[in-house]
Amino acid sequence: MENEYKIDLNCDLGESFGNYTIGNDSQIIPLISSANIACGFHASDPVVMRRTVALAAENGVSIGAHPGYPDLQGFGRRDMKLSAEEAEAMIIYQAGALQAFASEKGVKVRHIKPHGALYNAAAKNSELAEAICRAVLAVSPELTLLALSGSEMIKAAEKYGLRCACEVFADRAYNDDGTLVARSIPGAVITDEDYAIERIITMIKEHKVKSITGREIEVNPDSICVHGDNAKALAFVTRIREACGREGISIKPF
Amino acid sequence: MENEYKIDLNCDLGESFGNYTIGNDSQIIPLISSANIACGFHASDPVVMRRTVALAAENGVSIGAHPGYPDLQGFGRRDMKLSAEEAEAMIIYQAGALQAFASEKGVKVRHIKPHGALYNAAAKNSELAEAICRAVLAVSPELTLLALSGSEMIKAAEKYGLRCACEVFADRAYNDDGTLVARSIPGAVITDEDYAIERIITMIKEHKVKSITGREIEVNPDSICVHGDNAKALAFVTRIREACGREGISIKPF
Amino acid sequence: MENEYKIDLNCDLGESFGNYTIGNDSQIIPLISSANIACGFHASDPVVMRRTVALAAENGVSIGAHPGYPDLQGFGRRDMKLSAEEAEAMIIYQAGALQAFASEKGVKVRHIKPHGALYNAAAKNSELAEAICRAVLAVSPELTLLALSGSEMIKAAEKYGLRCACEVFADRAYNDDGTLVARSIPGAVITDEDYAIERIITMIKEHKVKSITGREIEVNPDSICVHGDNAKALAFVTRIREACGREGISIKPF
Amino acid sequence: MENEYKIDLNCDLGESFGNYTIGNDSQIIPLISSANIACGFHASDPVVMRRTVALAAENGVSIGAHPGYPDLQGFGRRDMKLSAEEAEAMIIYQAGALQAFASEKGVKVRHIKPHGALYNAAAKNSELAEAICRAVLAVSPELTLLALSGSEMIKAAEKYGLRCACEVFADRAYNDDGTLVARSIPGAVITDEDYAIERIITMIKEHKVKSITGREIEVNPDSICVHGDNAKALAFVTRIREACGREGISIKPF
Repeated sequence: MENEYKIDLNCDLGESFGNYTIGNDSQIIPLISSANIACGFHASDPVVMRRTVALAAENGVSIGAHPGYPDLQGFGRRDMKLSAEEAEAMIIYQAGALQAFASEKGVKVRHIKPHGALYNAAAKNSELAEAICRAVLAVSPELTLLALSGSEMIKAAEKYGLRCACEVFADRAYNDDGTLVARSIPGAVITDEDYAIERIITMIKEHKVKSITGREIEVNPDSICVHGDNAKALAFVTRIREACGREGISIKPF
Repeated sequence: MENEYKIDLNCDLGESFGNYTIGNDSQIIPLISSANIACGFHASDPVVMRRTVALAAENGVSIGAHPGYPDLQGFGRRDMKLSAEEAEAMIIYQAGALQAFASEKGVKVRHIKPHGALYNAAAKNSELAEAICRAVLAVSPELTLLALSGSEMIKAAEKYGLRCACEVFADRAYNDDGTLVARSIPGAVITDEDYAIERIITMIKEHKVKSITGREIEVNPDSICVHGDNAKALAFVTRIREACGREGISIKPF
Repeated sequence: MENEYKIDLNCDLGESFGNYTIGNDSQIIPLISSANIACGFHASDPVVMRRTVALAAENGVSIGAHPGYPDLQGFGRRDMKLSAEEAEAMIIYQAGALQAFASEKGVKVRHIKPHGALYNAAAKNSELAEAICRAVLAVSPELTLLALSGSEMIKAAEKYGLRCACEVFADRAYNDDGTLVARSIPGAVITDEDYAIERIITMIKEHKVKSITGREIEVNPDSICVHGDNAKALAFVTRIREACGREGISIKPF
Repeated sequence: MENEYKIDLNCDLGESFGNYTIGNDSQIIPLISSANIACGFHASDPVVMRRTVALAAENGVSIGAHPGYPDLQGFGRRDMKLSAEEAEAMIIYQAGALQAFASEKGVKVRHIKPHGALYNAAAKNSELAEAICRAVLAVSPELTLLALSGSEMIKAAEKYGLRCACEVFADRAYNDDGTLVARSIPGAVITDEDYAIERIITMIKEHKVKSITGREIEVNPDSICVHGDNAKALAFVTRIREACGREGISIKPF
């Protein structure tokens, strides 16, 4: 019998570049169900991408493209004003490159999750969100857009009839409207791990979360974004997995 | 009834970048049968690639990837010593990006032709030539490698069971061993258009060409590389087409 | 006897990159008094910079650095959110590189004019404008900041005790507050050359210009920004020079 | 009374880039006398350069430019065939950028040491070595070229009347002609620290070293290249310093 509840755990992978190393890909990969793989614009290079796809394929982890702004120096975290045409083309390009590495390993790219400043801008900007949806559809109508629950991206995906998966964050506080509290605001990051895990379970099983003002808001999470870039992050993911196991929540790709 | 003889005319296209324009793509495209489309490493960007694929698709021209070294400043014409792993991954990446744009337009990438210094190095370096063949196979075993007739690339393609097409140059002199005479040597470039066209016809119909020393050597051309970057080049391609027409040689993709 | 009035004519130069050519530098340079030389981030490369400095030095034209965002693909015209620290360091870097080429030719970098989206953002954003001023001072307190008349950059320069020169545009309409009318608004670009020249003379001699609403506003121009990228632009600059000559206005660096 | 003998210890610093970190700059800097600072082509960015110059200035360490090929992905370690004009301009550009950061801190760039594949190519290629010397002279005739003892760079510096400093490696074997044994050959890297230190002392005091074939060859070292990128490397530099102290060898910039 399958568990009644299920959730995906996604993590950004393959962010090393040339002689520069970032992340603990081989340690986090056994703990997650979906990998968002950097595509060479904000991080990664062709050799790193190929190795990361191989690592994901060997571990049976679902593969997604993680396209970002063409800004390696800023790691895709600096907002850039691109035209809709530029944003679309840039996403198709990056996803296509990843598809070739996936195809080589006999696996498929299953989702696209925009990275960093592109993700944040598209969460609020409907024009950019729609450009992203058109790009995903251009790559393949079978792809799923992985995006912030309640964001303009999710709305745009619904408008375009594009599959989407809603992402929540274990360690971030929410505003009353379901958006994330900006990191600059006190309380934006939840440091109490027990409380963070309790919230996750409630989000998955009861589809609700308490906002930063104490109001109960609705969420419907398909995936939890986790990090594995240090020992503490790895331990936290392990705790999330254990809690899900206890609560009868299966961890599997959306 | 089909013509007894046929040949492909290929040209490098889509080499503009951002605010920078190179080439007369819309003028040359009706005159050729195959387009080698730059993939963003030595030239082009995602917007230019998408437009170039659209232009080729609209004109019914066969599409190929034209991957180059990651050297925009040098336009891929400066030799770089990449490891076999780097060369392979870089070609898969670029071809994959192009495939996504082709797929969007409902067309297929049919061939891969390495660009500039990568092409020249692989013509002589069997290790690099084999890395290129492995990359092409990784992208798709249905792809054809378009490469210099008589080069190490053609040998490597045969070794790997990879389809290949032999390219000749209308305006370049040949050494006795079938390699191109280096541009630095007097007589390397043939400026007499009548003679150049006569040679092309002989290469296609009789599979031979006179080397720079006057010796008759064997060639078996599948494609002629042409240029369309100025009025004179465009006029020369038009003359080649006319001569082929007169001689009963069909112009079509290999 | 010197003319009572004087004005500088400045133009963006040295925007070619590798195999890509932009502009008519050798034709415009005899017509201007100050050159804003691209520094390799939004345009140009070391070889182009060195040649452009040589061209400016040979023509006795005053040299300025024209630093831009690190966005060659967008030609520095796409807004990017850089931290003040990033903006400062990026400007010092680019200006320093230009200084080395100037020093080689025995000339000095006299001014810094931010390029494109950096210029536009700093015209309105006081924090960025101040970062630019700190960068200019770090390079040399003898440098002049060339910036839009009435902009936040001019205010920041005054606050920092930095020399500045106010730039006006011959062919652009002004709002009542002295800012430029956005290009998207009808009437933003003045196409009547006679009227454009008449306005310039009035701005120089009477320190006033009629805004797009018809109100008379004050300007105090040190420099006029001109373009030389096509035959019409070159002819317009020639007309500006002639008009200045007739009106007793000397053209010389600020 | 000064020590009879003196030597410089140089180390490559400032190789981080954006979100990517390499090296232990703050730990190695108190142990060395000269820093070769990456200039943004093969590593580093403007923010990193500015911080690295500040760190060197605070520690009273002599500053040098460490220009490399424009190949961030390859960390400047992949050979590239640049024209002499390109190599010259690229070095002037990088050194000029560093000078601006040094000038801001009231210090001077004292030397230039080519990086990676540029260093290795110029050690053997006299044309490239001469291009480098012309670039150094263009930046400032007061600069010193830091280069491999016995290399074409040293010969070129002598030809051009350029100050140069000869560099030796503590942990690398030498061929009979004074060149370094290629890393691919067994014995190229000396792993016995005691022996390595003994050799250094002999090189400094007796101007000789035993080649890989056992022959005694002459060297005249001004500087020893050291690494500080891990705990073992840091400990080895500390041992070199102690040995120098025991042997009456002062550690100071050339």
